[in-house]
Amino acid sequence: MCGVVGIYSKDKDISKQLYYSLYSIQHRGQESCGMAVSNGDEISYYKDMGLVGDVFTPKKLEQLQGNMGIAHVRYSTAGGSAFANCQPLVGSVRKRSLALAHNGNLVNAQTLKDMLEEDGYMFTSNTDTEVILYILARYYKGNIVESLKLTMDYIKGAYSLVIMSDDELIGVRDPFGFRPLILGKKDDQYILASENCAIDILGGEVIRDVEPGEIVVIKDGELKSYNFSENYKSMKKSCIFEHIYFARNDATIDDVNAYEFRVKSGGILAQDDAINADMVVPVPDSGWPGAIGYANASKIPVAEALVKNRYVGRTFIKPTQEERELGVKIKLNPLSRVIKGKSIVLVDDSIVRGTTSRLLVKSLREAGAKEIHLRITSPPVKYSCYYGIDTPNRSKLIASNKTVEEMIEYIGCDSLRFLDIEGMLDAVDEPFNFCKACFDGDYPVKKIDKGEAISC
Amino acid sequence: MCGVVGIYSKDKDISKQLYYSLYSIQHRGQESCGMAVSNGDEISYYKDMGLVGDVFTPKKLEQLQGNMGIAHVRYSTAGGSAFANCQPLVGSVRKRSLALAHNGNLVNAQTLKDMLEEDGYMFTSNTDTEVILYILARYYKGNIVESLKLTMDYIKGAYSLVIMSDDELIGVRDPFGFRPLILGKKDDQYILASENCAIDILGGEVIRDVEPGEIVVIKDGELKSYNFSENYKSMKKSCIFEHIYFARNDATIDDVNAYEFRVKSGGILAQDDAINADMVVPVPDSGWPGAIGYANASKIPVAEALVKNRYVGRTFIKPTQEERELGVKIKLNPLSRVIKGKSIVLVDDSIVRGTTSRLLVKSLREAGAKEIHLRITSPPVKYSCYYGIDTPNRSKLIASNKTVEEMIEYIGCDSLRFLDIEGMLDAVDEPFNFCKACFDGDYPVKKIDKGEAISC
Amino acid sequence: MCGVVGIYSKDKDISKQLYYSLYSIQHRGQESCGMAVSNGDEISYYKDMGLVGDVFTPKKLEQLQGNMGIAHVRYSTAGGSAFANCQPLVGSVRKRSLALAHNGNLVNAQTLKDMLEEDGYMFTSNTDTEVILYILARYYKGNIVESLKLTMDYIKGAYSLVIMSDDELIGVRDPFGFRPLILGKKDDQYILASENCAIDILGGEVIRDVEPGEIVVIKDGELKSYNFSENYKSMKKSCIFEHIYFARNDATIDDVNAYEFRVKSGGILAQDDAINADMVVPVPDSGWPGAIGYANASKIPVAEALVKNRYVGRTFIKPTQEERELGVKIKLNPLSRVIKGKSIVLVDDSIVRGTTSRLLVKSLREAGAKEIHLRITSPPVKYSCYYGIDTPNRSKLIASNKTVEEMIEYIGCDSLRFLDIEGMLDAVDEPFNFCKACFDGDYPVKKIDKGEAISC
Amino acid sequence: MCGVVGIYSKDKDISKQLYYSLYSIQHRGQESCGMAVSNGDEISYYKDMGLVGDVFTPKKLEQLQGNMGIAHVRYSTAGGSAFANCQPLVGSVRKRSLALAHNGNLVNAQTLKDMLEEDGYMFTSNTDTEVILYILARYYKGNIVESLKLTMDYIKGAYSLVIMSDDELIGVRDPFGFRPLILGKKDDQYILASENCAIDILGGEVIRDVEPGEIVVIKDGELKSYNFSENYKSMKKSCIFEHIYFARNDATIDDVNAYEFRVKSGGILAQDDAINADMVVPVPDSGWPGAIGYANASKIPVAEALVKNRYVGRTFIKPTQEERELGVKIKLNPLSRVIKGKSIVLVDDSIVRGTTSRLLVKSLREAGAKEIHLRITSPPVKYSCYYGIDTPNRSKLIASNKTVEEMIEYIGCDSLRFLDIEGMLDAVDEPFNFCKACFDGDYPVKKIDKGEAISC
Repeated sequence: MCGVVGIYSKDKDISKQLYYSLYSIQHRGQESCGMAVSNGDEISYYKDMGLVGDVFTPKKLEQLQGNMGIAHVRYSTAGGSAFANCQPLVGSVRKRSLALAHNGNLVNAQTLKDMLEEDGYMFTSNTDTEVILYILARYYKGNIVESLKLTMDYIKGAYSLVIMSDDELIGVRDPFGFRPLILGKKDDQYILASENCAIDILGGEVIRDVEPGEIVVIKDGELKSYNFSENYKSMKKSCIFEHIYFARNDATIDDVNAYEFRVKSGGILAQDDAINADMVVPVPDSGWPGAIGYANASKIPVAEALVKNRYVGRTFIKPTQEERELGVKIKLNPLSRVIKGKSIVLVDDSIVRGTTSRLLVKSLREAGAKEIHLRITSPPVKYSCYYGIDTPNRSKLIASNKTVEEMIEYIGCDSLRFLDIEGMLDAVDEPFNFCKACFDGDYPVKKIDKGEAISC
Repeated sequence: MCGVVGIYSKDKDISKQLYYSLYSIQHRGQESCGMAVSNGDEISYYKDMGLVGDVFTPKKLEQLQGNMGIAHVRYSTAGGSAFANCQPLVGSVRKRSLALAHNGNLVNAQTLKDMLEEDGYMFTSNTDTEVILYILARYYKGNIVESLKLTMDYIKGAYSLVIMSDDELIGVRDPFGFRPLILGKKDDQYILASENCAIDILGGEVIRDVEPGEIVVIKDGELKSYNFSENYKSMKKSCIFEHIYFARNDATIDDVNAYEFRVKSGGILAQDDAINADMVVPVPDSGWPGAIGYANASKIPVAEALVKNRYVGRTFIKPTQEERELGVKIKLNPLSRVIKGKSIVLVDDSIVRGTTSRLLVKSLREAGAKEIHLRITSPPVKYSCYYGIDTPNRSKLIASNKTVEEMIEYIGCDSLRFLDIEGMLDAVDEPFNFCKACFDGDYPVKKIDKGEAISC
Repeated sequence: MCGVVGIYSKDKDISKQLYYSLYSIQHRGQESCGMAVSNGDEISYYKDMGLVGDVFTPKKLEQLQGNMGIAHVRYSTAGGSAFANCQPLVGSVRKRSLALAHNGNLVNAQTLKDMLEEDGYMFTSNTDTEVILYILARYYKGNIVESLKLTMDYIKGAYSLVIMSDDELIGVRDPFGFRPLILGKKDDQYILASENCAIDILGGEVIRDVEPGEIVVIKDGELKSYNFSENYKSMKKSCIFEHIYFARNDATIDDVNAYEFRVKSGGILAQDDAINADMVVPVPDSGWPGAIGYANASKIPVAEALVKNRYVGRTFIKPTQEERELGVKIKLNPLSRVIKGKSIVLVDDSIVRGTTSRLLVKSLREAGAKEIHLRITSPPVKYSCYYGIDTPNRSKLIASNKTVEEMIEYIGCDSLRFLDIEGMLDAVDEPFNFCKACFDGDYPVKKIDKGEAISC
Repeated sequence: MCGVVGIYSKDKDISKQLYYSLYSIQHRGQESCGMAVSNGDEISYYKDMGLVGDVFTPKKLEQLQGNMGIAHVRYSTAGGSAFANCQPLVGSVRKRSLALAHNGNLVNAQTLKDMLEEDGYMFTSNTDTEVILYILARYYKGNIVESLKLTMDYIKGAYSLVIMSDDELIGVRDPFGFRPLILGKKDDQYILASENCAIDILGGEVIRDVEPGEIVVIKDGELKSYNFSENYKSMKKSCIFEHIYFARNDATIDDVNAYEFRVKSGGILAQDDAINADMVVPVPDSGWPGAIGYANASKIPVAEALVKNRYVGRTFIKPTQEERELGVKIKLNPLSRVIKGKSIVLVDDSIVRGTTSRLLVKSLREAGAKEIHLRITSPPVKYSCYYGIDTPNRSKLIASNKTVEEMIEYIGCDSLRFLDIEGMLDAVDEPFNFCKACFDGDYPVKKIDKGEAISC
């Protein structure tokens, strides 16, 4: 998973704004980050492994000045090629420069790459992004909209792009709108970002979502909008997992707010749940909204019974294998005084592999919990995502391989319930607008490539 | 404010345990940290400015090996002498080594320092701790208990100490027990720590609090307890502000649990509060327990309407003065979709200067809140602390200088209520056991020195 | 200027060898460095700004394992694009990987780049190297020799290349052999390097120079040699400035040893120099061999009268403009006790801008030198280099703009003599084998591009 | 071994000057460094492990401002307590501050430490320096000269001190003057330093050496001189090993210049040496002056046949045991083209353990040298130094344990000659003014402590 931002000002330096915006979407990717800014004459950029606050020192930031820029944060990926995969990609073609940052995942990247390699193009990374950029470059002779339309004919799958040419900032969202892309404004600045917090942070106002299949171009202080094709009907399939897990509580994407959705999901899950417990305990921090919804609906009081260490970070020296239960405890210490002898409803937003839940349940048991009823405010994840969420291979998805009974045994809880797909869709107004393939395998776009994808 | 830990094992290396324990009390001090370990023959130590995870790299930790050790985290202090003030202090006298770490603040440090300087002693820091160590060293001829008793005759005020001699780990708590010190055990290890999370983290069990005026000595695998004086009557005056703000939710100090106390305080505050609002909004993260208590008692639902950026850290490039509202927003973004047009009860644990509350209220207003009723789950802080909490000078305490009406105007909220002192004491079983001088100026021990203290 | 290394082993990890070899040619480039290694399946690489010893930490080096690898050090270049210009370049085309490192400078890079951009190729750096790689990739369908021959038809100028394909290590030297490339062997390893010290360091043996226009391919443990063209006659024009200044004393390139050449040059310069001075003073460290040659021929004794600070490095805080004479003194302090009242022959290998000589002469005067006779053991540099030496623009070359008389006045010495071109050529056996364009403007290959080149 | 500097200005900030001066004496100690500056009101300081250029970043330097300061570089010492041993030591006593930096070694530090510990003083380091400071502090009631005189009655051995009080900069040299201390002036600044290069660097002028037994005090812009005792006769015993090895070539200490002494020593050694060799090869860099002297006297030409890698530094990844010959080669590569088949005189300044000489001789043999005649321009080191030079224990001194014949065999050279003690003394004007105990065991001051000293 990744996050993108782009900022355009007619004549003011925006690099510090870009930095703050990027900081606000750090939750979308912690492996690497990068920024490219243009002063009209020249693009300068920097990118490296690490968090925004570590990579962009005051000194680095000073060297990046321009009235227009794009930036990117990237989620952790497997393999040794992480350094080569940092974004934005920056280059020049036919005396014009292009920079591009991408959130999403193509379903035919490898197929296109093979095609380009046959024509003698070299690739320096494993990213889909490079494929997009090279096709774009091939067609780009000065008219970015025309070249983008041609490019979008080739590329299939999920992509929200921010692009910078010599004098334009461009935003693009694929015809299904899998990944978010929000448009905002603050004074003379236009802002494009994966989430509205990147606009809020600057004191800007959200204008609207970029539409599926839309190309927005900001040039000479003006914004123009294009549809990539008159023939092709865009069909909104916004990713519902953004609302379940990925986006921040304050994200409003395609008119659904993540926090409201999460609270509602918790409430719906509680509706026909006859458990009679002493307290609802959220798994911090992501379990909070669901737990609030559950508690409100069930009238069981919430207790903050897992205490988080706010300082555990990158530099923490990992416990060895024998000490691994330490690892959970140093992050989340159960408040034994509160839970001893109590029956608790433990609320989390989702289960992927099940390993963390298992360690947590063990830790709560040792702290004296009498009963532990695990409640998940989303359906079981049974299918891999082809559109950019880093769900593991199906063989590692617990819900794809175990029945609920088997999961209860593995995790060690007393009972386990998921929100079902209908319940989940009840929490939104327009259920047809969402991709829910990770739950039911109903993929809006088929995968064309073989092998695993490297999403972004 | 500061935190201390000490670990003793008969024959196993405890440096990694010490590291994890120290990590768990990082919230007690973020400016500097240090560890000293002994292998029986030699004490090695390292200390520096910065967080535990940054200062103690795997390489540094490897160089610190021993079966016994003490460690310290220190809160931010003013002035350029921060480096000299790092703890533990380590030294040798009469062929014996001593290391000492301190949480608290003496009321006669300067007076004692003057006395020692007259005798030709040099001081290399501004800390009370150095005064304690030099007096201890002066009397220490091999019997640590005797020398500690003499030392405790001199020093007045708040001190929880962990001390390491050639073959003993020692814990000391002042006769009023202002600061916490907990004793625990895990297998053959004894653990002394400011909070029980440092014991929990190791999978250890809490034995009990070290008593006011008690000296515990762990030697040859055995624990012995001494009273510093038969004549002097210890009188428990445990700091109630630890429970209000400083300690983690999972801290149980002198039989009061911080989380339970906080929830109860919120409940008591709500009891006679006739506000009819749409939602209770906690100030993350410290406002949560009080908000839960308030919500349960008032039946107004809780909403997580301030979204925290979990990645803001030391390296974040600070906005300039003109951009300072950015600074609040990058940390806490109001969820405008949820609060727009709503009347909210904003719950925080305490108000010191009032500046953060003011910026928060402004930010909530801009996000559309209709009414903002600020509720503080502790009494107004009107007096400086002499015993180790870094409350600013009275002139900067908003409650010491403004009436509630004036505070409402300054902060910009629609109403403001504090928990009163009686309400606060209702939340504990034995109200006489607590120091509440910061609220009522009733200091258990008078300040002897002039000028401001440097607490630890 | 730059330096390259490549190492091939049939089956042993060579990354540490590559590191040592790269370390030994650090003098060829201090701005950035990089290494790419292949284990047969996958190429991993790392590159960054900085010195070899800083960029390649033990941890980084551990992550780079393979039985084959290439590496690069890069000299300081102007402009903000330094990061993008780090080498080796690594990519893949038609399912095959390629990595390339380059020392030299093309005279038609821009022209070729324009051509490729017209065909839709993107460029991500300002280097000639990317041009070479893209042309190579375009033609590379599995037979590296065929694709290299086609590539070499396009590219004109100076290039010594080390290239790594999936299973081959390749060395290439342009038809004039401007830049060095040495072939060596140690046990089962083949080594290609800019200088023989990179072979010596491993305890290896030099086999021979790669010939002008030669392609050597090491595969399956065997070495094969190809000529890039049967029609085209290679003509050796080895850079004489390598021997004057750039290469280390222990470099033997095209059968000329730098140290011997330098001593001989000093001797020839002294032959008809009637100066009667008290001592010969070398400018450390590069002036030593010439000074030894001069002293032996003139019978004037050498004195080490300029004392170097061996610790001045990257992190040294630069003096401000007012303090700039400090800057010279902190690097070279004149030994006033030795030179006071004396007449000295100051020997340096070359003069480019003349600014350092001027400050040195001033510093020696202040230390009491009576007479300062500056002797340069090479001819005046009057023309820019198109083949990879970073001589500045002609307008900044002192010898291009001033007569000897004017130089004497500017520098402040009592007399100044250069070795003339004939004298310089007397120091080598085969004078026709050398490019001396920087002295006489007689360029073996004409510059095709306009504007300044970015050499490597 | 260590180096000290002190700078006093009436009213200008001197921290950057202090930095440059400290940089210039970096060769006297590379393990740790520190600076303390005073602005009249307050002393601020910083010290850490590492080189001057790494420890003092521009940011650190900015935080250190004052018109008066002292600084220190420390040589590598054994043991884990290196961090605690960094200097200057800074403290306060009787409301007055004191900072102290020390070069030398006491012969009775332990004895005095025992005495002070009996009185209840704590020690936080292993340094003699702390002993000196505590005695000074004990007697210091405002008159620094009186307290220093009393202190000097106690302390025996070698000490050159720079001390800073609230308003004075003080320099002290022990009654034998073992270690250097030079007094200089630049405009309104007074400078005290271990070597004159620290004065030269600032463009200052050397006034004179501080005399054995002298105390110089700079206050209110004026310099006053005191003798520590009227009864006690100072007797100059300046360390001759400073001139042989430790000091820079440009050091002039007690009227002997290191470079002149070294050249003269080489000449004397050559006088009756009948070797008929092809070339004199210095061991870089310290062997150069002796080699020049030897070459001039013997008429055998010098050749720079060992090529040094100027970039080998702290961060270089050390070869493993099997690769250790790499270690020598990466530092010094023999120029085989020059030495093949030749008979060489290899000149070095001294031999301590003999291990480096052995590896060098092996490396030269492999490069083809026919005969290797090792010539050492100082006598065999047979005794440990008690006065601050870090010679190892006698058991590790090769000359203390082997005859010349045995050394030849161990090192592998064809012949070996040392300068004898008489020859060495011929190179100075006043032979009685020097301590030569490391050669003949004739110690000017007896060692009182038992055990090994930690020199500084």
